[in-house]
Amino acid sequence: MQDVKKGQALELSKKLAAYSTALTYDELPAEVVEFTKLCILDYFGSAIAGSGKAPVRMIAELADEMGGKDQARLFTGGKSSVLNAAMVNGAASHIVELDDIHKGSIIHAATVVIPAALAIAEWKRLSGEDLITAVVAGYEVCFRIGEAVSPSHYYYWHNTATCGTFGSAIAAAKLLGLDEEQTIAALGNAGTQAAGLWEFIEDGAMSKQLHTAKASMNGVLAALLAQKGFTGPRKILEGDRGFFKAMSEEYDETRITEGLGQQFKIMENSFKIHASCRHTHHAVDMLIDIFKERKPSLEEIDSVKVESYQVALNITDDADPQTEYAAKFSLQFCSALALLKGSASLADFNEQSLWDEEVRALMKKVEVITEPGIDASYPKKWGAAVEVVFKGGDSVKMATEYPKGDPENAVTAQELYDKFIGMASDFPAEKRERIAKKLVDLEKVQNIEELMDNL
Amino acid sequence: MQDVKKGQALELSKKLAAYSTALTYDELPAEVVEFTKLCILDYFGSAIAGSGKAPVRMIAELADEMGGKDQARLFTGGKSSVLNAAMVNGAASHIVELDDIHKGSIIHAATVVIPAALAIAEWKRLSGEDLITAVVAGYEVCFRIGEAVSPSHYYYWHNTATCGTFGSAIAAAKLLGLDEEQTIAALGNAGTQAAGLWEFIEDGAMSKQLHTAKASMNGVLAALLAQKGFTGPRKILEGDRGFFKAMSEEYDETRITEGLGQQFKIMENSFKIHASCRHTHHAVDMLIDIFKERKPSLEEIDSVKVESYQVALNITDDADPQTEYAAKFSLQFCSALALLKGSASLADFNEQSLWDEEVRALMKKVEVITEPGIDASYPKKWGAAVEVVFKGGDSVKMATEYPKGDPENAVTAQELYDKFIGMASDFPAEKRERIAKKLVDLEKVQNIEELMDNL
Repeated sequence: MQDVKKGQALELSKKLAAYSTALTYDELPAEVVEFTKLCILDYFGSAIAGSGKAPVRMIAELADEMGGKDQARLFTGGKSSVLNAAMVNGAASHIVELDDIHKGSIIHAATVVIPAALAIAEWKRLSGEDLITAVVAGYEVCFRIGEAVSPSHYYYWHNTATCGTFGSAIAAAKLLGLDEEQTIAALGNAGTQAAGLWEFIEDGAMSKQLHTAKASMNGVLAALLAQKGFTGPRKILEGDRGFFKAMSEEYDETRITEGLGQQFKIMENSFKIHASCRHTHHAVDMLIDIFKERKPSLEEIDSVKVESYQVALNITDDADPQTEYAAKFSLQFCSALALLKGSASLADFNEQSLWDEEVRALMKKVEVITEPGIDASYPKKWGAAVEVVFKGGDSVKMATEYPKGDPENAVTAQELYDKFIGMASDFPAEKRERIAKKLVDLEKVQNIEELMDNL
Repeated sequence: MQDVKKGQALELSKKLAAYSTALTYDELPAEVVEFTKLCILDYFGSAIAGSGKAPVRMIAELADEMGGKDQARLFTGGKSSVLNAAMVNGAASHIVELDDIHKGSIIHAATVVIPAALAIAEWKRLSGEDLITAVVAGYEVCFRIGEAVSPSHYYYWHNTATCGTFGSAIAAAKLLGLDEEQTIAALGNAGTQAAGLWEFIEDGAMSKQLHTAKASMNGVLAALLAQKGFTGPRKILEGDRGFFKAMSEEYDETRITEGLGQQFKIMENSFKIHASCRHTHHAVDMLIDIFKERKPSLEEIDSVKVESYQVALNITDDADPQTEYAAKFSLQFCSALALLKGSASLADFNEQSLWDEEVRALMKKVEVITEPGIDASYPKKWGAAVEVVFKGGDSVKMATEYPKGDPENAVTAQELYDKFIGMASDFPAEKRERIAKKLVDLEKVQNIEELMDNL
């Protein structure tokens, strides 16, 4: 058994490289193409919405200060080198906390893989088909590596950054047309640059944006060097002094190869359609449904009960949030907002809504509790139940096992389109619709440079 | 006891930042200034000698392809952004394996700290005094961090790259004039970028140059962002999800603070004056002395015996090296070379010397063995004994406990000057002497830009 494992172990980078170099657009099922386009549309929304935030502006200022050739467009404005573009755009797309998430690998792949792919595709004037294929390969590789090291790696390491670097390298390698040996080198030098510690979360430092910025950039760097003949360790994952052993208490290398080439793991990706903590989404989904059905006024509502798993309450039981950010992590606030306004989008979280008198009044009627049955199913299911009792004495009860956006409770293309339009609300309507339309028909784009010129 | 340790633990980055921001040129003892200038001179030799090697050229090509403002000079030619300069010059100075080494932390500090310091000092037109002070601070901080995590960290991680990133950040922060809070942020974001796995050594990949390149660049990046207000984790070293716990089986945080501000750890630095493996240096030192004394011909020599510790033989017992690189790791080759040519410098290792008939003939007379007494003192002392028996029947015996260049067996300034001249042999004599002279009088240089313009 150990020998079989060892036998496999000699081949991991080679197998990933063989998979990636062989993948073609033509073999992608139509549903994979459609889904991948939604991932890219969703990325654009996050990158546009995040581009004005302070940490992103600082990284963009740095890129401007350093300079670079006009190779790829920055979501913060202007063009710079592909490395700078991967860095700035990797920072921009993670900060509003609305980017996609893969539960199995705990990776937000879009913010690392897509900026890398976009930068190379724009620079080399490649097509929408090329971009889609590279994103599929990049997601596949980083999801597999993340699954192999989860959950132990995640304690210290920010998977999106560490494992994401491999995804960025694969997407860039694919678009640069690297051969198998060069792709192995790119993976090796991606892994030996992999970094990003969770320590920043202890004091809320800005490092989270630096992590995704650098992961995207470092993967591109590894691929660009590999193209020049720069070699990297061939066994970066399973080697005795490699990524698995150095950075994970436990790991399962079978996750790298099992079903490789037969599955499309990008299809397991989850989307966030609300701008609040993921642990509030189940309740928000249902309360928005009730809003749509009845549009209740504050006066009509007698009480709201939200039942969920313990972890959700640990993180989101906050009856009196004091900041916009804290409001996103308050189950009471998000529930009241959803039931009164029918929405919990980016535009709904601001200083004004934070102190909205009706929302604050309804929050006093919201009770949040742990329900043992729901708790027992966590984390496989992120479930919740809500009960809204009206003054007239009637009530509505609802329950869900998966927040909307999980593959088991998928959002529609229209919902993601609407989300994008909301995320890009700083753009004139014509501009954001033009970009969205291009992205919806991405496979028809002949030259990514032309797409990016719309920004 | 645990509490005392915990109390200290809250303050590590703050203490390092307080030390670094307070350090001034005026308080450096004259011997520290003199020694630091030698470290910088030695760095220049390695960077010049390495600038033409293939992996370095590839990284320089990449920097050129990406572009960047003309802020700092590259040892490979031309100017680019400070980030690109730190990257290219960080790659250049490690590849000929003649750069300095600190035994306690297992760090080659020059190749990471000095390119970072040079790039900022040139860009900001700072003085030689500023540069010297920043290098002293950068060495101090990365040596302490390396000592705190050695030896366990070193099994997976390339200390020069991981711990070196902190040294680069400190040198850059010092030259940018960051305050204490900004310097804490720079340390935090240096640590969360720290990377570099030993896996590349398994197949001799080029990643070693990428490690030093990126460590130097990432430290500069952390400092530049900190200057813009970009925050980093305040407890990157000792925090629950920080550098020590994530990347080291064992660590000793007292090494960070013990004697901080009262010592100058740069004084513990070792220099390599021969271009061969460090485990051959003891014998080479003594055989060069015998050469100088007698200049023996091949015919006069009857036999050579070299006794040393077991580890030296494990790595360097090679009676028939087939490549220039292997020759540097052959104790037999290096011993014969030293005794016949009186030198084992960079210029002495090439295809011609590899197959030199006299050297090959003398190698057959060289016996290398482990001596139990010498072995027992390793690794505290890297000792050896040599005995050369001449045809006339007389013989010379010598023994040493430390190779030349260790602090316990220091090289002279003249020897390092001569080493530099040899390393810069591709430059016209006038040019290399001009540069060496500037470096010997570095504290008199008013503007580092002017120094770098000599390259």
